[in-house]
Amino acid sequence: MTEPSTPIVAPKAAVAVLAALKFNADGLVVAVAQQHDSGEVLMLAWMNRDSVRETLATGRVCYWSRSRKTLWRKGESSGHVQRLVELRVDCDGDAVLLLIDQTGPACHTGERSCFFRTPRGDKLIEIAAPTEKPSAGETR
Amino acid sequence: MTEPSTPIVAPKAAVAVLAALKFNADGLVVAVAQQHDSGEVLMLAWMNRDSVRETLATGRVCYWSRSRKTLWRKGESSGHVQRLVELRVDCDGDAVLLLIDQTGPACHTGERSCFFRTPRGDKLIEIAAPTEKPSAGETR
Repeated sequence: MTEPSTPIVAPKAAVAVLAALKFNADGLVVAVAQQHDSGEVLMLAWMNRDSVRETLATGRVCYWSRSRKTLWRKGESSGHVQRLVELRVDCDGDAVLLLIDQTGPACHTGERSCFFRTPRGDKLIEIAAPTEKPSAGETR
Repeated sequence: MTEPSTPIVAPKAAVAVLAALKFNADGLVVAVAQQHDSGEVLMLAWMNRDSVRETLATGRVCYWSRSRKTLWRKGESSGHVQRLVELRVDCDGDAVLLLIDQTGPACHTGERSCFFRTPRGDKLIEIAAPTEKPSAGETR
């Protein structure tokens, strides 16, 4: 966590991104995090204007925690940081796709991806085993 | 559109999926659609209880249109249907990942994916050309 942050987007581009986004009544857009090389969809969270700006400036993904009502610097407590490779804006500006490089599990349960349950037969099963024990430090 | 629908999930499993989902105050969960083989994230939309039930029963993705306040059977007018391969539920039950097989473009603009804009230099650019002209028949 001591390596320097790398600005990956010019400040003017951040202005362009923010101008293209249509934040909802709570000031949020949906963010989908996808591992940039494997294509695995890891998690879904929310971003406000400040978290988008910080993510673009630092190259480290920062969400907005709706439960804690604060900026959520992913991995700040768990070490499971997300390095931003590319941010994409959807057609109507109310969602972003974050191509990232995930350190460790993305999910607070210890699963690599939050999307680990699927129906089989007549019930939901878990399709992956946790890669690490849950971190007590990180909540959504 | 005349081929028979294929139930892909046992009715009891649909009950299990619905029980695991935590619909928001508007009765909705977020749905991320991902092309099952290429891994491309195609779009983000919303589902209510009925659209989840219909999607699991028919194997054709059905969303809830927040603008039109009606079930949105994806591709009903455009032909750009989404065949469900697998539905996954996230850790806290407020989002689903739909692994799908997309016919034609997913985006109403004619782009394959809704996430076609990204910052480069000091502005947003389009990273893909539309694969088809926009369909007048489909709105989100």
